[in-house]
Amino acid sequence: MDKVRPPFLEGACPLRLKVSLKLERINQLRYGIIGSGAVGGLYGGLLAHGGHEVHFLLNSDFEHVQRHGLRVDSPKGDFVLESPAIYQNVREMPRCDVVILAMKSTRNHLLGELLPPVISPGGVVLNLQNGLDVEADCVDALTGVDYVGVMGGCCFLCSNKIGPGHIRHLDYGRIIFGAYQASGGNDDGESRRGEIGRQIVADMTTSKIDAKWTDDLAAARWRKLMWNIPFNGLSVVLNASTDAIMGSAPAKALSDRLIREVHAGAAACGVTVDPESIRQTMEHTETMVPYDSSMRLDFLAGRPMEVAAIFANPLAAVARAESSEKSEALGTPATMPSVAMLCQELQFLDSQPRGTSKTSD
Amino acid sequence: MDKVRPPFLEGACPLRLKVSLKLERINQLRYGIIGSGAVGGLYGGLLAHGGHEVHFLLNSDFEHVQRHGLRVDSPKGDFVLESPAIYQNVREMPRCDVVILAMKSTRNHLLGELLPPVISPGGVVLNLQNGLDVEADCVDALTGVDYVGVMGGCCFLCSNKIGPGHIRHLDYGRIIFGAYQASGGNDDGESRRGEIGRQIVADMTTSKIDAKWTDDLAAARWRKLMWNIPFNGLSVVLNASTDAIMGSAPAKALSDRLIREVHAGAAACGVTVDPESIRQTMEHTETMVPYDSSMRLDFLAGRPMEVAAIFANPLAAVARAESSEKSEALGTPATMPSVAMLCQELQFLDSQPRGTSKTSD
Repeated sequence: MDKVRPPFLEGACPLRLKVSLKLERINQLRYGIIGSGAVGGLYGGLLAHGGHEVHFLLNSDFEHVQRHGLRVDSPKGDFVLESPAIYQNVREMPRCDVVILAMKSTRNHLLGELLPPVISPGGVVLNLQNGLDVEADCVDALTGVDYVGVMGGCCFLCSNKIGPGHIRHLDYGRIIFGAYQASGGNDDGESRRGEIGRQIVADMTTSKIDAKWTDDLAAARWRKLMWNIPFNGLSVVLNASTDAIMGSAPAKALSDRLIREVHAGAAACGVTVDPESIRQTMEHTETMVPYDSSMRLDFLAGRPMEVAAIFANPLAAVARAESSEKSEALGTPATMPSVAMLCQELQFLDSQPRGTSKTSD
Repeated sequence: MDKVRPPFLEGACPLRLKVSLKLERINQLRYGIIGSGAVGGLYGGLLAHGGHEVHFLLNSDFEHVQRHGLRVDSPKGDFVLESPAIYQNVREMPRCDVVILAMKSTRNHLLGELLPPVISPGGVVLNLQNGLDVEADCVDALTGVDYVGVMGGCCFLCSNKIGPGHIRHLDYGRIIFGAYQASGGNDDGESRRGEIGRQIVADMTTSKIDAKWTDDLAAARWRKLMWNIPFNGLSVVLNASTDAIMGSAPAKALSDRLIREVHAGAAACGVTVDPESIRQTMEHTETMVPYDSSMRLDFLAGRPMEVAAIFANPLAAVARAESSEKSEALGTPATMPSVAMLCQELQFLDSQPRGTSKTSD
């Protein structure tokens, strides 16, 4: 594997890039970023800044990035990609070995149009969306398509898109990813997935991304839900940032209860998460910089919230697990009553008009 | 009992009133209203309009009512009391046989100043505040004072104060009241309480108030909590009026769960409420005019909310009952987990700055 940074993304125009890239493809992974916002823009930006071939699908930010580049402010060092390879339509993009899916899962009904044109026959989807079982949406969207399989990844980071083509990375940044259990893809996928997985870790590591492969994606997903469920949810319902929540005795106690329920919900699904992570989640939230969760930003901006992925999917998974134990009908999971209530509150808030809706990558 | 309307409140000045009143006191109850807002202003206004002697303690509305009178808009007929007997200080008020307490329970730390000067030795306090065990605050405030006892009442009505000295009564209006179990007061209180209770019912009935005596105040209190807990709480947390809540499947399901928990909480405290009231509460809320709960109005106006009376007191009562059953330490009551969560959310919201605080009667 050639670890020398290829020169093809430094100051060249996208068209010249594509010609020169073909000569180097054998040892290099070609990355496609679907959803170049707080997460996709950051990781794609770091990979491109690290010398890798990255193609960004942009929506409303296209013209701004064409003129001013993609700007990333990060504790790892600020930088601007002057001329990234950007597109307004997946059919203009080259087929990619790793399609990083980082748009909001509220738009997953579009995956049937977005994914098939951009995935290469030897390629994988790396789904970095929040929540649980969001990979299933990719598997569904790629039915009948020749590809290797779907991976999922969890990003533990504080990052916001603060303007067109402008990402502000505030804190943390680890990404943990692995194969989705019902991965989809072709038969010889398993060894190829492992091979690509190792190369993604290597590419990310040389690009200053704290990346780690896991053989237990479900545990990583539930581990992340232990933060997302309490703090995305309460930040919207209580209209508060994390520091206000952690500074209030009742809200802190409620956060702790929600975290414990999510931990128990994972166990009900047969997923083991280190119990120490309960305390760690509270401590990390207490010491991190005041943060507006992605769900709160969506809410305040009048955008749909990821209630299905972050709340309804885990509740459904636990309800299925409880139901198969007791052979009862699906209902509110006994393991996560407070999570179920928070979900209902968010479903209500998500259904109410909140001013002009905005689109975002 | 003289049921002819006495002329003393019609167009006379307060000073002349007080002289003429003394001649008629034997068969007439003298009413004092502490908290002349949506509830106290309405019931006091109806009693005065019905010809009874009523003395109103006013705060910020005093000068307005002195000039323009007290205005009540009601489905029972609109009216204006041109010159009601109003006061800015309890020490200027005559001692009253029935002190109707209808100010917000968030100000109950003031009861030690407010109640002793205004209660007569043969008198009772009728506490119409929302919540549970708010009567205990009166008993505490009247320690060592000669009076008959404390009654509690529940008002099932939609009424708002929409301007200074201006009450808008929208819907319903029943008041159910009875003796508080730990009533306080002097030894011969029981028969006197029954006597006064019967006379209050008579006075209210002739004043177009749908009043009813109950021997089971606790059941009436819990019955009302079955509305107040879900709809006061959710209207604040979800920033919604009752029609929006009932129009949303998840919010309606959550309301139903909260109502059932409150019903079970009453049972845990040994209080029997007709199970039919679960369905009735949902149905009444569905058919009533869109309504902003008093707690939501307080929240939107930046005033403290009655979280202690409506949420923390019932939760504490259930926790005590559960604890005596299982001899365990007090904690979150197993019977009301969703109510406990809603309480924590409201405690958080109540503790956060929300613009300029306003005072209100």
